[in-house]
Amino acid sequence: MIAGVIGATGYAGAELVRLLWGHPEVKKMFLSSVSFEGERIEDVYPNFLGRISGSLVKAEDVIASSDVVFAALPHAVGEPYAAACMDRGISFIDLSADFRFDDDEKTYSAWYGKKYQYPHLHKNSVYGLVEFNRQRIKELTSKGPVIVGNPGCYPTGSCLGAFPALAKSLVCTDKPIIIDAVTGASGGGREPSRSFHYVECADSAAPYKVASHRHTPEIGRTLCAMAAGGGKSASVTPVRMIFTPHLAPMNRGILSTIYIPLAAEWHVTSEANMPPSKDIEEKTAQIRKLYLDFYKDEPFIRVLPSGIVAATNRVRQSNFCDISLHIDLNGSTLIAVSAIDNMVKGAAGQAIQNMNIIFGFNERAGLEAVPMLF
Amino acid sequence: MIAGVIGATGYAGAELVRLLWGHPEVKKMFLSSVSFEGERIEDVYPNFLGRISGSLVKAEDVIASSDVVFAALPHAVGEPYAAACMDRGISFIDLSADFRFDDDEKTYSAWYGKKYQYPHLHKNSVYGLVEFNRQRIKELTSKGPVIVGNPGCYPTGSCLGAFPALAKSLVCTDKPIIIDAVTGASGGGREPSRSFHYVECADSAAPYKVASHRHTPEIGRTLCAMAAGGGKSASVTPVRMIFTPHLAPMNRGILSTIYIPLAAEWHVTSEANMPPSKDIEEKTAQIRKLYLDFYKDEPFIRVLPSGIVAATNRVRQSNFCDISLHIDLNGSTLIAVSAIDNMVKGAAGQAIQNMNIIFGFNERAGLEAVPMLF
Amino acid sequence: MIAGVIGATGYAGAELVRLLWGHPEVKKMFLSSVSFEGERIEDVYPNFLGRISGSLVKAEDVIASSDVVFAALPHAVGEPYAAACMDRGISFIDLSADFRFDDDEKTYSAWYGKKYQYPHLHKNSVYGLVEFNRQRIKELTSKGPVIVGNPGCYPTGSCLGAFPALAKSLVCTDKPIIIDAVTGASGGGREPSRSFHYVECADSAAPYKVASHRHTPEIGRTLCAMAAGGGKSASVTPVRMIFTPHLAPMNRGILSTIYIPLAAEWHVTSEANMPPSKDIEEKTAQIRKLYLDFYKDEPFIRVLPSGIVAATNRVRQSNFCDISLHIDLNGSTLIAVSAIDNMVKGAAGQAIQNMNIIFGFNERAGLEAVPMLF
Amino acid sequence: MIAGVIGATGYAGAELVRLLWGHPEVKKMFLSSVSFEGERIEDVYPNFLGRISGSLVKAEDVIASSDVVFAALPHAVGEPYAAACMDRGISFIDLSADFRFDDDEKTYSAWYGKKYQYPHLHKNSVYGLVEFNRQRIKELTSKGPVIVGNPGCYPTGSCLGAFPALAKSLVCTDKPIIIDAVTGASGGGREPSRSFHYVECADSAAPYKVASHRHTPEIGRTLCAMAAGGGKSASVTPVRMIFTPHLAPMNRGILSTIYIPLAAEWHVTSEANMPPSKDIEEKTAQIRKLYLDFYKDEPFIRVLPSGIVAATNRVRQSNFCDISLHIDLNGSTLIAVSAIDNMVKGAAGQAIQNMNIIFGFNERAGLEAVPMLF
Repeated sequence: MIAGVIGATGYAGAELVRLLWGHPEVKKMFLSSVSFEGERIEDVYPNFLGRISGSLVKAEDVIASSDVVFAALPHAVGEPYAAACMDRGISFIDLSADFRFDDDEKTYSAWYGKKYQYPHLHKNSVYGLVEFNRQRIKELTSKGPVIVGNPGCYPTGSCLGAFPALAKSLVCTDKPIIIDAVTGASGGGREPSRSFHYVECADSAAPYKVASHRHTPEIGRTLCAMAAGGGKSASVTPVRMIFTPHLAPMNRGILSTIYIPLAAEWHVTSEANMPPSKDIEEKTAQIRKLYLDFYKDEPFIRVLPSGIVAATNRVRQSNFCDISLHIDLNGSTLIAVSAIDNMVKGAAGQAIQNMNIIFGFNERAGLEAVPMLF
Repeated sequence: MIAGVIGATGYAGAELVRLLWGHPEVKKMFLSSVSFEGERIEDVYPNFLGRISGSLVKAEDVIASSDVVFAALPHAVGEPYAAACMDRGISFIDLSADFRFDDDEKTYSAWYGKKYQYPHLHKNSVYGLVEFNRQRIKELTSKGPVIVGNPGCYPTGSCLGAFPALAKSLVCTDKPIIIDAVTGASGGGREPSRSFHYVECADSAAPYKVASHRHTPEIGRTLCAMAAGGGKSASVTPVRMIFTPHLAPMNRGILSTIYIPLAAEWHVTSEANMPPSKDIEEKTAQIRKLYLDFYKDEPFIRVLPSGIVAATNRVRQSNFCDISLHIDLNGSTLIAVSAIDNMVKGAAGQAIQNMNIIFGFNERAGLEAVPMLF
Repeated sequence: MIAGVIGATGYAGAELVRLLWGHPEVKKMFLSSVSFEGERIEDVYPNFLGRISGSLVKAEDVIASSDVVFAALPHAVGEPYAAACMDRGISFIDLSADFRFDDDEKTYSAWYGKKYQYPHLHKNSVYGLVEFNRQRIKELTSKGPVIVGNPGCYPTGSCLGAFPALAKSLVCTDKPIIIDAVTGASGGGREPSRSFHYVECADSAAPYKVASHRHTPEIGRTLCAMAAGGGKSASVTPVRMIFTPHLAPMNRGILSTIYIPLAAEWHVTSEANMPPSKDIEEKTAQIRKLYLDFYKDEPFIRVLPSGIVAATNRVRQSNFCDISLHIDLNGSTLIAVSAIDNMVKGAAGQAIQNMNIIFGFNERAGLEAVPMLF
Repeated sequence: MIAGVIGATGYAGAELVRLLWGHPEVKKMFLSSVSFEGERIEDVYPNFLGRISGSLVKAEDVIASSDVVFAALPHAVGEPYAAACMDRGISFIDLSADFRFDDDEKTYSAWYGKKYQYPHLHKNSVYGLVEFNRQRIKELTSKGPVIVGNPGCYPTGSCLGAFPALAKSLVCTDKPIIIDAVTGASGGGREPSRSFHYVECADSAAPYKVASHRHTPEIGRTLCAMAAGGGKSASVTPVRMIFTPHLAPMNRGILSTIYIPLAAEWHVTSEANMPPSKDIEEKTAQIRKLYLDFYKDEPFIRVLPSGIVAATNRVRQSNFCDISLHIDLNGSTLIAVSAIDNMVKGAAGQAIQNMNIIFGFNERAGLEAVPMLF
């Protein structure tokens, strides 16, 4: 098959290109870039020399020549390409936020400052968090070409860490779930800026966009939908959620530490200010079993054994999401820690996973990489 | 005056030496080290060449020759030195955990695996979190030499970020305060180990000792005491607290993101999944004023103006604690972010601040350093 | 085929395991480790979970069950394993220095402090720098199982950057070739030590083992042999060489900046203290052509086009060696800069390249990875 | 006294401000910035909050109110300010390249693309490499206000490492001195760009501007002048020099590895490919003595004892230049390694050292900082 990538020269686009190149079913790629049209991809990314080669053409030409089109563009510019793909009868996998909100235009426009240009496209698009929507992606695919809103990096790590707790009714919904996440600088994209200037972010940690990051409503909607039984029926159960992103001096990775208030029946009695008890260990083991059960057929989720914590260097360059589970000393909060590579499971890898589902390929195809510890 | 440092060759000890060398009132230092006894400090730390010089002697000789003694030793070995200082009539400032728990031997021994060897010393020692206990340190000092349990690095950043909220009754104590903190590798000390091996911690983020870190009870006790009106009467109000430490690839710094559930009267009404409202901004400004008021006489606390978040590179090598304040989109949780240099305000700097109080020096003496952004 | 790895839990061993797992011809692996015998590789490297699994057995069992054996051991302990492989009639690829010096026991023992235990093995072993010895590796292989001394990481980057200049007689041998190289911390191995402790090497650059690094004679011998026309006849032409290794705060990579004095006929006339002239550009282009010609059939050497400098992040995790070429402003020195991933082309990747040659596989098999820019 | 800084918001400017603030003789500062005129310095650098405060005014106002003016501006814009200072009768210390070439306008304009606007100013300006020109700075100062061309960061580290060898006639001038240097990202300034974008320079090493960096002629001229006996008589002896700068992932520091061909009488006989001999050790010790003698009165040069190599983390934030000395295994090349903090000794600190000389202050005033290992 032939894969097209619009926006191939941003970091997510280039990562897509790198991964698609190694995909056993992808025979050819067409790539476009507004900034570098006419140049060759290996001139923009000399690390590709001798492996990946090709001229950067117009987006229109990519669409005209491909069997599937990925878009790795800024927010709010991709809808026309989605429409063109639908016209041509090919699927469109969008890495921007434009198709992550289904027909909830209100939320989308409140956060991204733009109305839907092609509202009808959003009625049958699907939010491509595979572990959440695999069934729906397959259903839509059975009817024809689809539009996939590939999830944000933070929502991917956050939701995967919290899903089983919600699905298995472990959560006390009176209290907010708190998601404290840290990412590396690749999340800021390729365009130079002070925030991602080496000197300003090396050897330092800081939060950013506290209580105002655009991934918040995406996480909120998805957790609510999962609490409501999964599927598309968002917002039935009012799960409240707090999300704070941080930047740490690293290239890749998102670590999400997720504080999930446990329902009363899951509480463990504990003595104030004392070290962890056997009871906490046992209850944690029970919850780990529920997580393992929930994810038992998932090829990319690793619920870690006791004693191993999730760490971004254990998933680097892979499509894995690692999850470690802990119960707080108070005995009333589950601490689920998830780690993903923001550029793979959090972007390009997950997009390919969506493609694999759409085309009926093995879901692991092209995504077999063993994580590099270093 | 003459300052003595026992354990001068660990990271905290060496940082103490560096700072004491620049202290206007310290005329001479005596240093000891078990590992390097007989060697010169500048051979162990060649960065000191041409500035700081001197043989590493026995701890006994340090105590015999100094007007004040700092100990930067592993936990559970310092009590005999404290006793010796009391016998000589000089104050003892301990950077280990041994004197952080007053006479609460139960908590100390549960976490540090050792009973008090000299129980009477703990009756009149003082927990040296200056912003919490300044008055008590002064009172004790007026009666004679004192023993100070210099606070842990995490407790310092965590407590300073939460104190005003507790003191000003902003907190709903039904729900736990959640402290999610990230530190750099200097916190792991000078002794090589896999966890702090360059390759294993570079370019990665991970939590460690989740729900089992020894600083948890120290933070818990102190927050309770503050909630109860400050002073030594710990544990009156049952403030619950969850603490998760993380390691990020940096040398210095602790960033603490503190989720403080607000009392009902401080809640802001907000619409689910919508961007921050004006109301949230206004309420945040009110809380900032309360924080500014609480810390108005503190020389090392900077409550940051709106728009600036706490970041570890803004306090690097200084004794400052920066605090930025935010209210979550749900309108019911205060997010206080604090940043300190773990080796200065979180260790050596705070110890010197204690010395300054004990000796009646200007509290800023020797601690004037301007933070280095890079 | 079945591949065996002795010493599978060091960094080079684990990298071998990661790469062999993805090799299309390797159906099974047997792994051993003295330190972790009886444990599973994925417990030592949890990043392998869900991909690579298997118990760590005895070295003897690895040898008994494999079609080829790699050893990633400390220096001076591998000879008995080589002998055992020869007895069993299987090839042995050694990543230590033990078989890098052919029968030159004098040099080996002067630097590694040990005599050859099995001298006869060294008469028919081969130094596995493929671009230098490919023909000889094939010849030996045609006669039976072989012992390969896989090159050191520094010698690989250094020699590949200098070979064409020597082979094409560009070099003035009156003056020394100076190799100034910088590497990342993975070169120091997995065992914790002060030199590779995060705090001590982060945010710093320094040389180490100046004028005393063990890779010096290996580089010296190989450059001499190349100057003498390649093949095994080492030391005919007395090429002098100076080598200084440095450590920089990164995980992977070796960058070698190689100062090669040009023979008189290659000199470019230039005016003192003036910017680069057109003449220099043109002469550089000529030399680039000679390099391209020399390496025209090499699958892993990329002689970079004008305007692109070799950088370690352009070869990361790949088996490539990038080379950029420059002539100094004085017009009399060629500056060849080479970049490799020390763990791949500098260790595990090159070992697999040797295996590919021995077994007649496509030399690129298992080594197709596209370099990750980040 | 009152110090003025023009261009106070770039990295070098801000570092000057930080250091001047702690200078015992500086009672007040006036600061200007084109980009941030009218704002406060602590809004641009919130790390200054609570320590350094003040509005950014016009350059003219800085000149009108100060006793000395520093300029930390881009190249080729500072001459008018120099002229204005001369008119006002106050000294001008310029951190750009504009006054580093004395009256050698030819070299300056070839590299910086601009002619001298005020040629007469360059007749009596002085190149402010203190260890080279201290006497001349004092002489000029005795006659009235001076213009100092504060040296470039690379020239400082390079020249200080090579000076004694030239002055003590150790050098064989037939062969080039090769300077291989590596710096951190702060040298690239505060303006965001791809080269200094976190993701592109983290975890990587690469050279840049090979055989074309503007600091080359500055180093060349200075080494020649030193070879010719010091003083201003540049270019008498034709010392040839090759300079290659590299970027490594660190914030501060320059490490220069300087290969100095030894004059025949200093050669040590050595056997090819053998480890270092006693003779090399002894000769190195002799050379170290000559270096120690040359620098015996210098307050900021540390010629390191045997066994300690120069490293950037041993001089961090200090005005020190560390030098370690080695002789290559061939016995004919001296390897001098120097380390400086590029922002201190390589920029702001050296500028203050110049001010101290001009005003007759203790040369160490304001520059006492102990290097921070981390």
